[in-house]
Amino acid sequence: MIPVSKQFMDENFLLDTPAARHLYHNHAAKMPIIDYHCHLSPKMIAEDKPFRSITELWLGDDHYKWRAMRANGVDERYITGDASDEEKFLKWAQTVPYTFRNPLYHWTHLELRTAFGIDTLLNEDTWQYIYKRSNERLKDPDMTPRGLMRKYGVEAVCTTDDPVDTLEYHKAIADSGFEIKVLPTWRPDKVLAFDNLADYKAYLAALESASGVEIKDYATLLEAVQKRHDFFHESGCRLADHGLGEVPYRAYTPEEAAALFGRLLDGETLSAEEKEQLRTALLLELCRMNARRGWAQQMHFGPLRNVNSRAWNKLGPDTGFDTIGDWKGAEKIAGLLNALDSENLLAKTILYNLNPADNVWVAAMTGNFQDGSTCPGKIQMGSGWWFNDQITGMEDQMNALSTQGLLSRFVGMLTDSRSFLSYPRHEYFRRVLCNLVGNDLDRGLIPMAELPRAERMIEDICYYNAKNYFNF
Amino acid sequence: MIPVSKQFMDENFLLDTPAARHLYHNHAAKMPIIDYHCHLSPKMIAEDKPFRSITELWLGDDHYKWRAMRANGVDERYITGDASDEEKFLKWAQTVPYTFRNPLYHWTHLELRTAFGIDTLLNEDTWQYIYKRSNERLKDPDMTPRGLMRKYGVEAVCTTDDPVDTLEYHKAIADSGFEIKVLPTWRPDKVLAFDNLADYKAYLAALESASGVEIKDYATLLEAVQKRHDFFHESGCRLADHGLGEVPYRAYTPEEAAALFGRLLDGETLSAEEKEQLRTALLLELCRMNARRGWAQQMHFGPLRNVNSRAWNKLGPDTGFDTIGDWKGAEKIAGLLNALDSENLLAKTILYNLNPADNVWVAAMTGNFQDGSTCPGKIQMGSGWWFNDQITGMEDQMNALSTQGLLSRFVGMLTDSRSFLSYPRHEYFRRVLCNLVGNDLDRGLIPMAELPRAERMIEDICYYNAKNYFNF
Amino acid sequence: MIPVSKQFMDENFLLDTPAARHLYHNHAAKMPIIDYHCHLSPKMIAEDKPFRSITELWLGDDHYKWRAMRANGVDERYITGDASDEEKFLKWAQTVPYTFRNPLYHWTHLELRTAFGIDTLLNEDTWQYIYKRSNERLKDPDMTPRGLMRKYGVEAVCTTDDPVDTLEYHKAIADSGFEIKVLPTWRPDKVLAFDNLADYKAYLAALESASGVEIKDYATLLEAVQKRHDFFHESGCRLADHGLGEVPYRAYTPEEAAALFGRLLDGETLSAEEKEQLRTALLLELCRMNARRGWAQQMHFGPLRNVNSRAWNKLGPDTGFDTIGDWKGAEKIAGLLNALDSENLLAKTILYNLNPADNVWVAAMTGNFQDGSTCPGKIQMGSGWWFNDQITGMEDQMNALSTQGLLSRFVGMLTDSRSFLSYPRHEYFRRVLCNLVGNDLDRGLIPMAELPRAERMIEDICYYNAKNYFNF
Repeated sequence: MIPVSKQFMDENFLLDTPAARHLYHNHAAKMPIIDYHCHLSPKMIAEDKPFRSITELWLGDDHYKWRAMRANGVDERYITGDASDEEKFLKWAQTVPYTFRNPLYHWTHLELRTAFGIDTLLNEDTWQYIYKRSNERLKDPDMTPRGLMRKYGVEAVCTTDDPVDTLEYHKAIADSGFEIKVLPTWRPDKVLAFDNLADYKAYLAALESASGVEIKDYATLLEAVQKRHDFFHESGCRLADHGLGEVPYRAYTPEEAAALFGRLLDGETLSAEEKEQLRTALLLELCRMNARRGWAQQMHFGPLRNVNSRAWNKLGPDTGFDTIGDWKGAEKIAGLLNALDSENLLAKTILYNLNPADNVWVAAMTGNFQDGSTCPGKIQMGSGWWFNDQITGMEDQMNALSTQGLLSRFVGMLTDSRSFLSYPRHEYFRRVLCNLVGNDLDRGLIPMAELPRAERMIEDICYYNAKNYFNF
Repeated sequence: MIPVSKQFMDENFLLDTPAARHLYHNHAAKMPIIDYHCHLSPKMIAEDKPFRSITELWLGDDHYKWRAMRANGVDERYITGDASDEEKFLKWAQTVPYTFRNPLYHWTHLELRTAFGIDTLLNEDTWQYIYKRSNERLKDPDMTPRGLMRKYGVEAVCTTDDPVDTLEYHKAIADSGFEIKVLPTWRPDKVLAFDNLADYKAYLAALESASGVEIKDYATLLEAVQKRHDFFHESGCRLADHGLGEVPYRAYTPEEAAALFGRLLDGETLSAEEKEQLRTALLLELCRMNARRGWAQQMHFGPLRNVNSRAWNKLGPDTGFDTIGDWKGAEKIAGLLNALDSENLLAKTILYNLNPADNVWVAAMTGNFQDGSTCPGKIQMGSGWWFNDQITGMEDQMNALSTQGLLSRFVGMLTDSRSFLSYPRHEYFRRVLCNLVGNDLDRGLIPMAELPRAERMIEDICYYNAKNYFNF
Repeated sequence: MIPVSKQFMDENFLLDTPAARHLYHNHAAKMPIIDYHCHLSPKMIAEDKPFRSITELWLGDDHYKWRAMRANGVDERYITGDASDEEKFLKWAQTVPYTFRNPLYHWTHLELRTAFGIDTLLNEDTWQYIYKRSNERLKDPDMTPRGLMRKYGVEAVCTTDDPVDTLEYHKAIADSGFEIKVLPTWRPDKVLAFDNLADYKAYLAALESASGVEIKDYATLLEAVQKRHDFFHESGCRLADHGLGEVPYRAYTPEEAAALFGRLLDGETLSAEEKEQLRTALLLELCRMNARRGWAQQMHFGPLRNVNSRAWNKLGPDTGFDTIGDWKGAEKIAGLLNALDSENLLAKTILYNLNPADNVWVAAMTGNFQDGSTCPGKIQMGSGWWFNDQITGMEDQMNALSTQGLLSRFVGMLTDSRSFLSYPRHEYFRRVLCNLVGNDLDRGLIPMAELPRAERMIEDICYYNAKNYFNF
């Protein structure tokens, strides 16, 4: 027998020191979840129907798993194709042991354990048992979307919604008396997505219809968007999200922006520089709206999207063919934030970088626009995002934030997920967090005499900071 | 006496846990070596002559050591100059204790131990003993090129060869009945190296001579190259290698490419954009050839070469004056791979980045072009290369690959070396690999219940993955 | 009680192994300090007056603390505003427990302990006691600037001085018989700072006045600068420092440079490319002056300065609104160093990168221009700077240097500080260094049989390398 320090994913999973264990079990684990950024379907929460099978729940929409299966040599038929639920589950089960050291291995077993009570390791020998037992369990009434949210101690979630969305399901959820807050997030990326003019004009038509404003020019575009922003605010939205690839920032005058928009609608081709000017103008207008309402805003930057044309033609977006870009960003982010700050219209802002090589400069960047008159930690560095949502990714983000700013003021984790089974990612994050802080207590880098403050810091990062920052 | 956890380079060197030791000693160490990328001389293998001295073997061609000696203040006379073998060895011996924490310190003593059976530490007190003993040992018949390859359990090596190479020594080796496979690798960098027109035309002349095709235009260039590609294939080559600095990718039409090549031959000056177009066109043609033959291809990108003009004028290329560039690459790599994938002509591909700041995006990039219908791990992230061929470099590469893809499908290590003494780098790599996986087993991140699968994963990465992937 | 491995900041703070403890206590801790780069005020050293209060000493000029306070939600009045010393100290004390994991937490308590003999943790409960006791202690005669320098075992410091500076305080210090060397550093950044023409012309006027040379054109500019360079040399200066943001390097002819300077003085607008040419020309001229005098030169690159316009308008420079840029730099740095090396006018050079993502290529870059005929480690990678002056920042820099070059030849730490209390940063650095090397000894990566050489390496990095390199 080969001795090991710890059994697989035991109660002290990821917790290397007594101090880390104390912080996790007595503090972090007890906190409710505020999942302030996710891609859950409000329709599914409103309808609260049981799931068909674990395949639907796990493999229906999860491009992380799809990418792992492709890397493992699984044919697309078993990934996004017409294979049966059972066949797809088998292919996934066969892939799982090939994911050692990838977060999928831990997510899979955390989800099996916490949602289904299954501690069996998934592989090609156990897949039938797990498939059967989990599907049976899914028939239980506590395994619906709302049931899962209750099970994981969720207090509030923010979905991700387009300005033209009716938010009817959010209303239905609220009207139903569901005790967990389900709030919309304003995600107006399509307002800037004018590279494909036909799609853009279709979007403007939808925006006209939703806002009741005829979009004739730049001014009426902004008017239409503002109407929807107002509507989102009335619907309880307090948070915006801006998805950027390369960060746009190029100086312009309001007159130039209006003229560029006019030329765009007229079908003229704008140069790359002009496009960036227009994109900057629109983004700043959107940010001003956020500030005037006192919302917080998120900026997710760095993805290089849809790089595989064959897959795009066959499967469309969000199917596992986005990747990490390596653009320069410091001057542009600084330019955006400064433009807004100069007008006193810089909202509370969370910066998420996709390329972890940018961690340190992004962490440093937050420090340039803090503002004691607003709130502590006004400008935040967002938690390890997407490709960084794993142990080293989260550690690197927290180390960058710790050395360049104040970890203690961090608003912490979000799932960014489309799955109701993803809440254990909060547990995963909390264990990583407690391990970092616990190790520092253990090594004499944080004094045990200040343990109560360290405990409070853990609770703040897990819960109270987000609660106070977003003020839902 | 100051207590330490482990003696220097003992049998458990780099292996921190019982699990790591088990994986290494019972699995990794037993695997043969497939050294699928190196710069060994096929002539030396064919001739199999004994080495003159350890100075020739160690210092004749090793720019890693040269750089260390220069940084240590050694005069160039003792590095590449006319000093005697003994003087040069002394200067190196004096430098060795200044290389603490550099991989050279470990390589040096691993090589002394495994090839010469010498466990004495090299420094200015011991140099004479080691110089004498190693030179004596070099007279033994098992210390020739072939003897060293046998000693280290090598099963196959791929050298690095120009399209105009006759491959006569490869043939001679095969004809000699040598039991270790020595295969050529197609490295057509000079086909793209048109910045110096005089050198380029000389190269085209060599290519005409080797192929029997008169190169009058773009079409005949490709014809000549294809002839040599065919010849390499017939000679057993199954692997290409493309050495890039900044990755080229710029859209072009075949007509434009042909015209640009024509203008180039006419002595016209091409703009930077035109050069990039032509380079893209040629690179894509070369990649198509690889795909049609079912070869694997390597792309090494990121070196900024020959940055020191004084040294260049005196010593020429590959003398220790190449360095790490910091170009952006994600959009360009994605463009290249997508262009090929769109035509169903993307060969199995290994991406090697020289700047470790690119590790994570490169690891993520591989996931965009995996293809279940080809093989598992079709697109690979190459092992820590050149400046990254050391403990943290290898760890960082494997951590990036683990979190962004499937470490289990990794084709593993290569020496990239010009020295027959470099095989212990495989041992070094295997110890680092086993330590990473062993630590995960020890900490409960990989279940001991899956130990047989973890053992298989180690054997796969050390041997079977490369065997299956390259299919030599 | 939760058991911990070590008490907070005990004698073995940051030292994880017996070997690390031995190296630190018996070697590193005994070395004097050569603080070859700082921003201390020579006037304050010359006058040697007692400090008014710990608030003046700690908060009067420390933008690290200011940024932390802003991030903690403290109003600017208590940071740079008109609040009382006591109020400001309270706000800082309240912030301190929120800086867990930030270097400020350790710096604060190292300074309290080593300068004031206070071991009490600073927080809102203890602030009054500490405020009172430290202010009383400041009345003691050993707590003046000179007293503090003596207390910390300083042997030499280099301040940072503009070419127009009279260096009168340096002279006064020398004349006073102060036993610690206080030398000027030549920092001619303003010679390149022509973006604001009015400011630049004012600076040229000051330069005319200081040099006695009328600046009519490029040649007389260089003449005036050379005069001041001569004066600095006569005043004991042996070290230059060049503060760059994005590194400039663009080819030019001397005629072009002279013409560009003429057009600049005439009020013409130069293009971005022309500005870079002129900046390159001036920088190279400055570097040539350094080489001719046998000085060492530092190049600090990477800051993106003054990104917050509101703060700039209110507070001016150096108030905590500089940040980390993410420009590309490898080709430009290589170009600069090569241009100088080609003329045999490359001085001993220390490269400091602000973006830690650049660590590895910068470490590799130093290896391209080493020169055995000058001295070991002629080209240095500077210690973790500014945003990197913390545990992981220093570790990452030393790991990059170790794997790409020779850590043993490293000239080590500097404070880069404006505060006479910052000397414990050398202790912090030395502990981190000894921990890295000690861990390697402990794990069998460096042989204990070579312990005397490892001890010497520690002493070299802490003291002797700088002593030999700068030769003050």
